[in-house]
Amino acid sequence: MSAEFVLDPRLAGDSLAVIDLPLCSVRLMNDARFAWLLLVPRRTGASEIHDLDEPDQDRLWREIRLAARALRTVAPCDKLNLGALGNIVRQLHVHVVARVVGDAAWPGPVWGSGVAQPCDASLLDQRIAALRPQLAANRA
Amino acid sequence: MSAEFVLDPRLAGDSLAVIDLPLCSVRLMNDARFAWLLLVPRRTGASEIHDLDEPDQDRLWREIRLAARALRTVAPCDKLNLGALGNIVRQLHVHVVARVVGDAAWPGPVWGSGVAQPCDASLLDQRIAALRPQLAANRA
Repeated sequence: MSAEFVLDPRLAGDSLAVIDLPLCSVRLMNDARFAWLLLVPRRTGASEIHDLDEPDQDRLWREIRLAARALRTVAPCDKLNLGALGNIVRQLHVHVVARVVGDAAWPGPVWGSGVAQPCDASLLDQRIAALRPQLAANRA
Repeated sequence: MSAEFVLDPRLAGDSLAVIDLPLCSVRLMNDARFAWLLLVPRRTGASEIHDLDEPDQDRLWREIRLAARALRTVAPCDKLNLGALGNIVRQLHVHVVARVVGDAAWPGPVWGSGVAQPCDASLLDQRIAALRPQLAANRA
């Protein structure tokens, strides 16, 4: 019997729920500088991709690609950035970020770059409302 | 008829060949600060993961996981970091980095952190000689 999954409080504080896919909770980072998704596999104790079993590793890959497709539909970009770091928050999570030439961290990585600029509520609502149907339509 | 694949000269200059897997050339970054692999799919014109066809996307995922397993066998670490950025070099490439608490960029990302410290030849030889059989044994 596995313990109930609990989202890391730092991830919870930095982002908002968009939708639950079969494996991952997809969340939007609350940072007006970037269109930035987090995928968090709901598997207690996982911090590395290899902590997931093989079917979950394959699910994760499908869900990363789905999230990337949804994000670039909603937030046209010059380059997608994917990352799985976890040096600070060990709970396994994958970043999918829509990068635009000249954005606040360009051409460097978003991680560790400056300070998040919280979105106002209408921007959050707008981003989530645009993303959710893109993710829901293809989640099977 | 697709054009012959040519490795981006910046990637070529920053790294050394370890082995060719079915899809990716695996290369070792020439940076003594980190045990750091690059995977470069040999597909002309690809800069995003979705530029690959579906079978290649699945191959890429298998090869990322194989590279991660080989790397952590050879270079024990506290956290693996994966990244696909490409903001500077657009040719599709994926980073797999063995991170150690207190390393030169900890806990930040390696990308854009300081300046590479070229390895001496014996360290490069040693790392490549250790990695190659780990990758070769499981490349099927």
